[in-house]
Amino acid sequence: MKLDALWITGFVDGEGCFYVGINKHIEMTTGYQVLPEFTVVQHKRDIQILYALKDYFGCGVVRTNHGDRWAYRVRSIFDLSEIIVPFFIKYPLKSKKFLDFEKFRKILEMMKKGEHMGLKGIQNIKNLSTQMNRGSLR
Amino acid sequence: MKLDALWITGFVDGEGCFYVGINKHIEMTTGYQVLPEFTVVQHKRDIQILYALKDYFGCGVVRTNHGDRWAYRVRSIFDLSEIIVPFFIKYPLKSKKFLDFEKFRKILEMMKKGEHMGLKGIQNIKNLSTQMNRGSLR
Repeated sequence: MKLDALWITGFVDGEGCFYVGINKHIEMTTGYQVLPEFTVVQHKRDIQILYALKDYFGCGVVRTNHGDRWAYRVRSIFDLSEIIVPFFIKYPLKSKKFLDFEKFRKILEMMKKGEHMGLKGIQNIKNLSTQMNRGSLR
Repeated sequence: MKLDALWITGFVDGEGCFYVGINKHIEMTTGYQVLPEFTVVQHKRDIQILYALKDYFGCGVVRTNHGDRWAYRVRSIFDLSEIIVPFFIKYPLKSKKFLDFEKFRKILEMMKKGEHMGLKGIQNIKNLSTQMNRGSLR
């Protein structure tokens, strides 16, 4: 299955998620680990779409998610910054998920500058991440 | 907001629904009424996408659905047959929703031939419609 860029944007407007997890992590100097990820979850009947996304972007993994659901997931900061973010700058989301993407992109830029290594940066990232993925019933 | 055809297919692959309701209806000679509909449901924060779909297709209505959710809905047999179905023939769905669309299209063709006015046709339509929208957890 070969995907078109505009189809991908439409599908991600519906099914995609830009998420930034902030976990306590004893080995980090700040005590926190920042984990941005881009995911698309589908029922296993449509697993071929997840593999087609992996092929298209040339990064990420397809893994079982929960029950009959599978996920395409990109967690590498490099792949997120160099592949996923530039794609959605070129082919912008049309739904309000665009606002989540903008915060996601900003957090990645902060991470590239190493701001997540300091407490002030962690607090700024936390503030941004708590504003994400709200207002939707999904 | 202006939509692209490929974006619409991607979005509908995620968020759209092809559904055929069969209701008991005392005034119909067969005792049943067949009600095909194409719907896209969104949280109200993305209501502008529903209006953009209505503008793009030039048919259908945007109505409140349930709670904070709104729906773009096309129920006219003419609009479904002449606008919606041809669109998804030209820009095919990539998910397994394609199989629902094929049954939906077949039922519309049967209705255009008046088969839903007879008991045998109703039974055939029922058989097809019960095979739709299964296998997904949504």
